[in-house]
Amino acid sequence: MADKFGLTVRKNENFSEWYQQLCLEQGAHLADLRYGVQGFLVLRPYGFQLVRKIYELFEHAIEEDNHEPMLFPSVIPEENLQREKEHAGFVPEVFWITEAGSEKMERKVALRPTGEAAIYPMYSLWVRSYKDLPFKRYQSRITVFRNEMTTRPFLRGREFSFFETHDVFQTHDSALSQIKTDLSIMKEVIENKLMIPFYFFKRPKWDRFKGAEDTFVSDTIMPDGKRLQISSTHDLGTRFAEAYNVRFKDADGTDKAAYQTCFGPGIFRIVASLISIHGDDTGLVLPSIMAPLKVVIVPIIFTDKPDKNKLVTDFCRKLEKKMKELGITAKFDDGEQSPGYKFNQWEMMGVPIRLEVGPKEVEANTVTLVRRTARQKIKVEFTKLADEIHQQLKLMDDDIKAKALTYFTDNTKDATTMTELIDVLQTHRGFVKVPFCSVDLDGEKCADVIKAETAGAIVCGTRYPEEEKVTRGAKCIVCKKQAKHIVYTAKTY
Amino acid sequence: MADKFGLTVRKNENFSEWYQQLCLEQGAHLADLRYGVQGFLVLRPYGFQLVRKIYELFEHAIEEDNHEPMLFPSVIPEENLQREKEHAGFVPEVFWITEAGSEKMERKVALRPTGEAAIYPMYSLWVRSYKDLPFKRYQSRITVFRNEMTTRPFLRGREFSFFETHDVFQTHDSALSQIKTDLSIMKEVIENKLMIPFYFFKRPKWDRFKGAEDTFVSDTIMPDGKRLQISSTHDLGTRFAEAYNVRFKDADGTDKAAYQTCFGPGIFRIVASLISIHGDDTGLVLPSIMAPLKVVIVPIIFTDKPDKNKLVTDFCRKLEKKMKELGITAKFDDGEQSPGYKFNQWEMMGVPIRLEVGPKEVEANTVTLVRRTARQKIKVEFTKLADEIHQQLKLMDDDIKAKALTYFTDNTKDATTMTELIDVLQTHRGFVKVPFCSVDLDGEKCADVIKAETAGAIVCGTRYPEEEKVTRGAKCIVCKKQAKHIVYTAKTY
Repeated sequence: MADKFGLTVRKNENFSEWYQQLCLEQGAHLADLRYGVQGFLVLRPYGFQLVRKIYELFEHAIEEDNHEPMLFPSVIPEENLQREKEHAGFVPEVFWITEAGSEKMERKVALRPTGEAAIYPMYSLWVRSYKDLPFKRYQSRITVFRNEMTTRPFLRGREFSFFETHDVFQTHDSALSQIKTDLSIMKEVIENKLMIPFYFFKRPKWDRFKGAEDTFVSDTIMPDGKRLQISSTHDLGTRFAEAYNVRFKDADGTDKAAYQTCFGPGIFRIVASLISIHGDDTGLVLPSIMAPLKVVIVPIIFTDKPDKNKLVTDFCRKLEKKMKELGITAKFDDGEQSPGYKFNQWEMMGVPIRLEVGPKEVEANTVTLVRRTARQKIKVEFTKLADEIHQQLKLMDDDIKAKALTYFTDNTKDATTMTELIDVLQTHRGFVKVPFCSVDLDGEKCADVIKAETAGAIVCGTRYPEEEKVTRGAKCIVCKKQAKHIVYTAKTY
Repeated sequence: MADKFGLTVRKNENFSEWYQQLCLEQGAHLADLRYGVQGFLVLRPYGFQLVRKIYELFEHAIEEDNHEPMLFPSVIPEENLQREKEHAGFVPEVFWITEAGSEKMERKVALRPTGEAAIYPMYSLWVRSYKDLPFKRYQSRITVFRNEMTTRPFLRGREFSFFETHDVFQTHDSALSQIKTDLSIMKEVIENKLMIPFYFFKRPKWDRFKGAEDTFVSDTIMPDGKRLQISSTHDLGTRFAEAYNVRFKDADGTDKAAYQTCFGPGIFRIVASLISIHGDDTGLVLPSIMAPLKVVIVPIIFTDKPDKNKLVTDFCRKLEKKMKELGITAKFDDGEQSPGYKFNQWEMMGVPIRLEVGPKEVEANTVTLVRRTARQKIKVEFTKLADEIHQQLKLMDDDIKAKALTYFTDNTKDATTMTELIDVLQTHRGFVKVPFCSVDLDGEKCADVIKAETAGAIVCGTRYPEEEKVTRGAKCIVCKKQAKHIVYTAKTY
């Protein structure tokens, strides 16, 4: 903690600066931007542990859904990246390896911007028969590389943590059914465990993944009111199968191109939303499942009472041992700093429960417990501690969930005219639902008008799988034609 | 299983071909070489699960030794790679990223060949005081890149799985003590859990890691008698600290360069030794802790007895459910292939226990159990199955351990003259211990003579931490000077 420590701005007053401070040396030491290559982030232990835990949750959920793990090279031959015509749109963002040692390479290779062009040529060797289908695999704990112009920790980087499934199906219906399964995985991990509320949208056709038939996403709202995409599932139809030759012999003996989907939760983006949505002016607030450390034990030592200090320290060690026996990750902070400094530090790190032990607590065989989301101090008898900690962790999770959900719900509004939309976007943050003409390619020009008139709000899409019904007679807020959809608009990153 | 399946050569007759077949489509489907870029391996699910398990074992052991996890970018600025003069020796092996999109980059960056040059510039920011020491961190589940000329699955690749610790100490003694801890971690993971015997050597000075004071390694013997290095710990002294400015204020207020060590088990090399040393002519043999699947259940179905088949299938499902309740990962193979085909397939994959169920077993409420390392069939009562499986897994581990240890011990010999060394190396595989003049730089010319006269045997080093004593009066087998060391020689990869 040799750096200047403590946040100097409030989340509600300057979110952008608050976020940056919380990520870096002044805050929770999640990451370091001083690596010396723009957009390449160093993950420090606490930040890495958040990333790892999110990976673990997805790995568990996706293996329950019968996906097998695999690992592909980080490089992609140039010609493979060009095989699907629209997908080749990634090329301008790609980093190229052109030299080995002091020699120019015969064929340059790309650092993968995403997995499709690496993986599908191998799928064409592995998938042979309808009996192989569905064929569901994933890779996790890898990074991908894109030459982004502007970068911010976890929100946009040139190398970032990646997780991707790649599934192959016999029919389009099975592919569409996987999209709903991916949604249920997002609900389980993101909504239930990380307590981040989100909407699941079908994107307008003009905003699909390069090469996909359709793109389905999870969008949440950040504290500055901007929407953040935190997952996508792409319905690739048979387009990639045609381009990469992923074909199978069907039950009737005919040779067919396979239907494919791929799903990717944005691991770094999820970290960004986790720390932004739950955090407060004193630092991180973490759902109990995410906290690397559940409990910190802080001794209250008085320099003028040295005889008492050993009793306090012994009691703290006993406490630490008890936590270990209970399977609760805990740390006894016996550092030299003052109790006040330690309180600030562990609040910054979002440790859910602080136990304070001074001479009084030792005498009474109690501890003083403070939960991260409620500042009052509670006296707890040593023998009742296990129950109380579990109870307090649950209360904390409830606090976090309620606060996040309230913010999310309060920031979803309606508008029926452009004037109303502009007005709502000036006074509030988040999503505004509006009637809209078309989410096919012909709707893009109306979306462009919205973007221009609102200084940046985009059409995020329609709710999926249950699309909201348009009121009879409602008109598109731009072209005034019959509205066919309720679309969600929002400013974005 | 659409590929041609089954090994066509014996391990003892053509190890190299046996190994390649076992890794690829004819064998256990661990990896795929058909990616289209030389030296870049695709890990298929079974191979990936072996890699992942090895990572998990090391992650657990290294965190028990108080290392915190972190994650660094895959790229290194050119100037950082050059800062330590000897370490810059990596440059000729490095891949360079020189273009982004269609533009040439202002500064090219290297794909990391190893972590030092990426990590230590950040350590110079993080380490400030003797109070920060020891400072112990690691990264896992990453890959590194080296432009190797010849490549073989898991043994040598241009991108390979990596694990590295980077530790900083106040004194050289603490650094040396970490080397012994790293050895104990290797013993725990590699010797006790993976049952791979190895020697721990101090390398001769001429064979150090580029930039290190000394290098300490774990070397094992492969079935072709060549030694394989499966871990290294480098004593960096203060050389890297001087080059990268990793300094601290000591207790007496003075500013000092820190002592550093780094430890890396070779994850891919360990996979290679695991499958090579334990495997046999029918496929993989895996210690129970490594087997992704502990039990396979194979129904014995007779097409002329359709009424019995449902009873058999139901019994198998009951069995699968029981395994799940017992926490034993098991698979009921209800595929269309013949029992014989399934036996071959699961033996190839190294599944420790096969349970066969036919009409007779159903009638008697028993199963027929076959352990991978002993071909006889055992009848087991359904109610006694849990105990029997645990017992058989233990027996299998004992079989594996004994066989590996015998091979290792049998292939460590002595020689006292060059003629004897040449002779021993012609008739046996593995290590030969010889008296030798010097493991400092002045010994290299004698090592070169050994290499030339034995068609490739190198001096692997001296045992560490207990070096073997030289017999009084023994002479170096090359220069005939007084021998100061017993060194181990072996042919190598």
